[in-house]
Amino acid sequence: MARWQPGTRERLQATALQLFATQGYDQTTVAEIAATAEVTERTFFRHFADKREVLFAGQDDFLGMFTGPIQAAPADARPFELVRLALDAAGAFFPEERRPWSRARQGIIDANPALGERELGKLQSLKVRLGEVLRERGVDEPAATIAAETAVTVFHLSFAQWIAAGEDRPFGAIASERLAALTAFVHPGR
Amino acid sequence: MARWQPGTRERLQATALQLFATQGYDQTTVAEIAATAEVTERTFFRHFADKREVLFAGQDDFLGMFTGPIQAAPADARPFELVRLALDAAGAFFPEERRPWSRARQGIIDANPALGERELGKLQSLKVRLGEVLRERGVDEPAATIAAETAVTVFHLSFAQWIAAGEDRPFGAIASERLAALTAFVHPGR
Repeated sequence: MARWQPGTRERLQATALQLFATQGYDQTTVAEIAATAEVTERTFFRHFADKREVLFAGQDDFLGMFTGPIQAAPADARPFELVRLALDAAGAFFPEERRPWSRARQGIIDANPALGERELGKLQSLKVRLGEVLRERGVDEPAATIAAETAVTVFHLSFAQWIAAGEDRPFGAIASERLAALTAFVHPGR
Repeated sequence: MARWQPGTRERLQATALQLFATQGYDQTTVAEIAATAEVTERTFFRHFADKREVLFAGQDDFLGMFTGPIQAAPADARPFELVRLALDAAGAFFPEERRPWSRARQGIIDANPALGERELGKLQSLKVRLGEVLRERGVDEPAATIAAETAVTVFHLSFAQWIAAGEDRPFGAIASERLAALTAFVHPGR
């Protein structure tokens, strides 16, 4: 067994997802995941803190995907433009080839309330972090929190639609549609 | 002990809240609540299904407070106007004399994760129900869900501010401020 090889992390994720889906999340051990992926447990733990984190790895990347474009935007950009930039960036984070993984992952999360809570916690962290970067850019309260919560709502609803059965439009198109619905909702005359 | 008397329900709620706050939610039994309020356990159960429901009673009233004004609105009212009507009605549901109870209740919920989940479930039910009544009025998707989620976000943030330490403005003023922040966020030019 090689101690390190390219793609090990991805193979561990694919293997774990397969085992979670076929035999249940609670019934699957790290030892099984490692053995099935043909690595040692030690290698598993070099990539993931525990089996749950196979499903939640990359939280920093996830938060950074939203906050990076906001921090890099021109100083005079309005909060709505900042949110649009963040959602555009999310499109790059959820390319077509990721959709089957995201769908399978959601199925496992939906079947396990503790994982559902962890997922809600991830969205809550995103709200808090987005509020912070907006305030750092000089957006006042309650505008910063309203913008952050609304952005996460649009993201969450877009993601849910993106992985819905039969949906084949790209993430960006779905998110744009929802941002447009928000705009129309707030000012139907425009 | 009288079998029924006006105010029994309110006395049970006040007594329970007091006991939860002083000795902890988990440590408090229905028997203690009933004895302290000087009623039988049977009387307690005539008012509440269990001790948790002392904190969550009135869910139907809560949902109806939002949906009633929407269902009663003129047929040509826009979704944003419907949401504004619902939030105005919420102001009547959270009068000044309710604020100390709401603050104490929140303290108990924050100290108990299972109660926090129940509270999130209540907000989730509100989102679902609001989406339903908006669709019944002919609002399409994704507009209905966007409107429902946004309304609950504004409600939730307004409520959190209403019970924040030092806040003394009425609920309606706080909710209006947040609706205005949402409008300014989506259409900064107006």
